[in-house]
Amino acid sequence: MRISQLSAASGVPIPTIKYYLREGLLQQGEQTGATRAEYGDAHLRRLRLIRALLEVGRVPVASIGKIVAAVEDEGIPVHRMLGTAHYALASPAETDPDDEEQRAARERVDRLIGDLGWRITPEAPTRDELAQVLVRLAQLGRPAGEDDLRHYADVITQLVSEREMGKIPVDGPREAAVESLVIGTVLYGKIFDILRRLAHESESAHVLGS
Amino acid sequence: MRISQLSAASGVPIPTIKYYLREGLLQQGEQTGATRAEYGDAHLRRLRLIRALLEVGRVPVASIGKIVAAVEDEGIPVHRMLGTAHYALASPAETDPDDEEQRAARERVDRLIGDLGWRITPEAPTRDELAQVLVRLAQLGRPAGEDDLRHYADVITQLVSEREMGKIPVDGPREAAVESLVIGTVLYGKIFDILRRLAHESESAHVLGS
Repeated sequence: MRISQLSAASGVPIPTIKYYLREGLLQQGEQTGATRAEYGDAHLRRLRLIRALLEVGRVPVASIGKIVAAVEDEGIPVHRMLGTAHYALASPAETDPDDEEQRAARERVDRLIGDLGWRITPEAPTRDELAQVLVRLAQLGRPAGEDDLRHYADVITQLVSEREMGKIPVDGPREAAVESLVIGTVLYGKIFDILRRLAHESESAHVLGS
Repeated sequence: MRISQLSAASGVPIPTIKYYLREGLLQQGEQTGATRAEYGDAHLRRLRLIRALLEVGRVPVASIGKIVAAVEDEGIPVHRMLGTAHYALASPAETDPDDEEQRAARERVDRLIGDLGWRITPEAPTRDELAQVLVRLAQLGRPAGEDDLRHYADVITQLVSEREMGKIPVDGPREAAVESLVIGTVLYGKIFDILRRLAHESESAHVLGS
């Protein structure tokens, strides 16, 4: 299809498509003339992925470039490609290696991950992200208990292994797996958070209500 | 204590304390002279609450005013006071009553809440917030299954009733209950989200890794 058709099929305006082409986020079409190129399903899939990253994941364009590079490099195993997307969704934690409290919290996170037998790369930004929340809770005078963290982790492990991972189509196009991961992580994360707040309101009505 | 001591004890700078006094967020001290006032523990507690709302909950000052009013009005039951804080933590959803898709999603949310037997006020903004995520998932071609929603809700109900609600000190000062709710909702919500992303990475390593 022509660029105008690609725009109609994807809902992405032509100038935006041209911007993605210039930035290397969208692969070039097949040149069929001096000013003409043909696009196909792979381009549609890529545009879906870019929109999911931008609109659902709020991933900055620079980070999308890294994810697209991992998608295009077939030499990178699917798991590592998904990891690249995962890390782009983490909020970067400000860490200060000289801060004793932060270092202790990070060690606690590393120990927890080890105890759980989770396979997490040492450089996963999620480790510092969790450590930062633990520091904040302690500073507010409400340190998180070991037992609570373990319980949360156990509940989540079960949910993720039984319900969530199976939904990521790892055998199809690499774009589709990443798109699925972003939508699942962000939007189901939101559903989880909202249901939790609803359950709090309901439980509070039961306990304290008339 | 004097305002300078209140500042030292709370870590809140004097000009900020004066701003809270002017805005009515902090109750006036006891006037002991033309330019002198005495402050006590109640002021310290209120400052803790304001900081938790601002820094942890990212609640705008205007909404903090409403929460403080509910805290001060002893005629408002604790459950309704907590509800005021809860609703201030919701991200306002843009709703369009003429949009058929949104209306259907909202009906689905109302049905789910009814089926679960949850006690949620009809005007809870969380209802529209959840409906909006359901619309977004459907638009992305991945509608949320009934079974998944119910399963999430069941897991969350158990967590909240067994682990979380018990931690809110509902018998002490009203400020302390609200502060506890905000910290629990926001920071434990983050812990949940981060653990979920860690579990995804680990599960993906197990399923796809060497």
